[in-house]
Amino acid sequence: MHVDIGNVLDGTPSVSRDSLERLDETVAAAHERIESGRADAEHGYAALNLPETADADGIRAAVEPFGDAEAIVTVGIGGSALGAATLTEALADEDDPDAYYLDNVDPEHVSTLAESLPLSETVVNVVSRSGTTAETLSNFLVVRDAMEAAGVDWTDRTFVTTGEEGNLRNLAEKHDLPALDVPEGVPGRFSVLSTVGLAAAAIQGHDLDALLTGAAEEADRLSGSLFDSPAYAYGATTYALAQRGALTNAMMPYAESLEYFAEWFAQLWAESLGKDGLGQTPARALGATDQHSQLQLYRAGPRDKLVTLVRPREREDREIPETDLQGLSYLGGSSLGELLDAEFEATEASLAAAGVPNVRIEIDRVDERGLGELLYGMEAACVLYGELANVSTFTQPAVEWGKRAARGLLGGGDFEEADAVAEKTTLVVE
Amino acid sequence: MHVDIGNVLDGTPSVSRDSLERLDETVAAAHERIESGRADAEHGYAALNLPETADADGIRAAVEPFGDAEAIVTVGIGGSALGAATLTEALADEDDPDAYYLDNVDPEHVSTLAESLPLSETVVNVVSRSGTTAETLSNFLVVRDAMEAAGVDWTDRTFVTTGEEGNLRNLAEKHDLPALDVPEGVPGRFSVLSTVGLAAAAIQGHDLDALLTGAAEEADRLSGSLFDSPAYAYGATTYALAQRGALTNAMMPYAESLEYFAEWFAQLWAESLGKDGLGQTPARALGATDQHSQLQLYRAGPRDKLVTLVRPREREDREIPETDLQGLSYLGGSSLGELLDAEFEATEASLAAAGVPNVRIEIDRVDERGLGELLYGMEAACVLYGELANVSTFTQPAVEWGKRAARGLLGGGDFEEADAVAEKTTLVVE
Repeated sequence: MHVDIGNVLDGTPSVSRDSLERLDETVAAAHERIESGRADAEHGYAALNLPETADADGIRAAVEPFGDAEAIVTVGIGGSALGAATLTEALADEDDPDAYYLDNVDPEHVSTLAESLPLSETVVNVVSRSGTTAETLSNFLVVRDAMEAAGVDWTDRTFVTTGEEGNLRNLAEKHDLPALDVPEGVPGRFSVLSTVGLAAAAIQGHDLDALLTGAAEEADRLSGSLFDSPAYAYGATTYALAQRGALTNAMMPYAESLEYFAEWFAQLWAESLGKDGLGQTPARALGATDQHSQLQLYRAGPRDKLVTLVRPREREDREIPETDLQGLSYLGGSSLGELLDAEFEATEASLAAAGVPNVRIEIDRVDERGLGELLYGMEAACVLYGELANVSTFTQPAVEWGKRAARGLLGGGDFEEADAVAEKTTLVVE
Repeated sequence: MHVDIGNVLDGTPSVSRDSLERLDETVAAAHERIESGRADAEHGYAALNLPETADADGIRAAVEPFGDAEAIVTVGIGGSALGAATLTEALADEDDPDAYYLDNVDPEHVSTLAESLPLSETVVNVVSRSGTTAETLSNFLVVRDAMEAAGVDWTDRTFVTTGEEGNLRNLAEKHDLPALDVPEGVPGRFSVLSTVGLAAAAIQGHDLDALLTGAAEEADRLSGSLFDSPAYAYGATTYALAQRGALTNAMMPYAESLEYFAEWFAQLWAESLGKDGLGQTPARALGATDQHSQLQLYRAGPRDKLVTLVRPREREDREIPETDLQGLSYLGGSSLGELLDAEFEATEASLAAAGVPNVRIEIDRVDERGLGELLYGMEAACVLYGELANVSTFTQPAVEWGKRAARGLLGGGDFEEADAVAEKTTLVVE
């Protein structure tokens, strides 16, 4: 992974070279803390060991019975879906089985999917560490019902990815389903390089070893200085900019195949760092499309942003045919890739010229190795940011309130949070 | 459209009832300005007349030759794609022709789509007011080439949506292609209810009259008081909250079919209001999924946000089958829709309990009429916000710099902006 932070040195806000050098002393201490957490496989820090601890052979063996699948449905929500979706969207070829994600409880969407799937050729992966996630279990019950109604033996077409005990573990034992273990100490949003993220990629036939090798190479680049580690360069720079007022981080890959990566990053960044009144709001963007949507705001709006531009250095290109259309002859003989790269560099310069800080991240290609580097790099950047900000990176306490309220509303127990729902202040205009 | 602003009256930031009443005098003046602009069909304001001026019959007639299409490819970028995408995603049934959008110049994506389309059964709509948009024309040239290579007569399968003159107009005349007029005075991001947004929906067979009726009904609700107009209630509240520090507006529909609506809103809001150092950054979210991704940040992060929660009051529901899974029996006999509604209300209450301002927007159903209300309502809200903030709502000057730089880089002329690209400050960590 190549990180260029040259365009944060000037602008509003900005971080001077001197400030970065002062910050680097803190980075050294944070790196020691991270390495100590990794050595002890502490909760959260253990995720940074996945390049070594993930069991690619075990995953391949577990999904081997489903090698003939035409479709993979991952039933999970949040970190139980986003990592897998990021990998399959980025890597899938046309010939691979289609990957779908039931990561919401929209009845119309779930019904449409359940009715359009080739159920007898579909493999279902139910992912929940606890085995009690309401959305995931509800969707699983619906899909299982649809399979039974279609005369498909769901026990032949289902496996689970879950913790050591709980509903899904019991279900797997009762029906002799393949079961993958969610690793200890790895929060969902850091689980892309574990069983949780890798199973769907394995069924599509992607090279898990290359993914883990790319990640391991990025891990090897972690060091006590942000000037030597791409991941820490990104984590330290985003932290310093946030301190100086860049409360929004627009993540803008220039590759359609990385659109889901921006979603994955948004969860990683928001749920890890958004606490104690701190954190940086991830804004999901896509180049070049969002130049015609968000760029006006990024360039001319409030100075509360940085823009992260991501691209592969190489991709399969496509020539633009010659044309006699007026004023467009300059495009003929060029290629879509050249146009996209020109727009990337133009946008980067445009932001710099307007004083909007921006960071360039490049990988060699959108392939297994490049993704391994990128995903691991962002995770390490996030952990470093959390150390520098002194927040509890690996927890998500603020989502519990709503879970209790929803459960109370559905008759799943007596929760005072549910009472607050009925007391809503209303001022309706209609 | 039903707008409930009760949850902005307390919190951080918040707007008191008194403040809203004071602001309402300014709303009255802004409404007069808007009505005057509409009466004179001034640039931009003319968009708010589309419920009356759009020619549904003309659109249906133009696309009638393509009634047999299996796929529709809209080639356009920004406002030339987002409106159509919002409508087709929200309204499409399984039996409708598939709608695709070439709104980026990623060569891998364009190639994959060109190779997978049933080209002889595909209709291509090339959308560009000027007829010179580099991304759109490049993609069109590639698709035309693919049709020719496949032995398909592209002139039988293509129509254009463009301004009175320019490349695409000339092309249509030369090859006798159906041509729809982009209406005068309607900026791209306000064009969903015109030819630009409606053509793809017409080919899918949706009810354009109901869309326009819904919009007209929302237009009828515009008035000199935010307390009488849902659109103005939203525009005035978001403006007042932004003034008080809510520089991010998380748009969070609780319906998969409205996921693209959040993209459309993000363009409308960012490009219209992001200028002069002002504006509100739209963060695109999706309920309930993003409860497991963004909610931690919204609830516990910096107090620079409001959350807009959108849902239909009715939808096709799906029962959750009874289960013997431990601790989940409360879900059995309930439905996915009930679960989703409980999560909506729980999240709303959760934000309110944490003092995060939030607005509830409801439509009756995600159908043509409901969408007409919602899209028109957001446009009117945006125009009102622009009046209150005293910005140039209908221009996007900040994107021009990058366009010139990209054109210069591609050899399309001598532009000083292109020189700045070569002068980039670099600080690379790899």
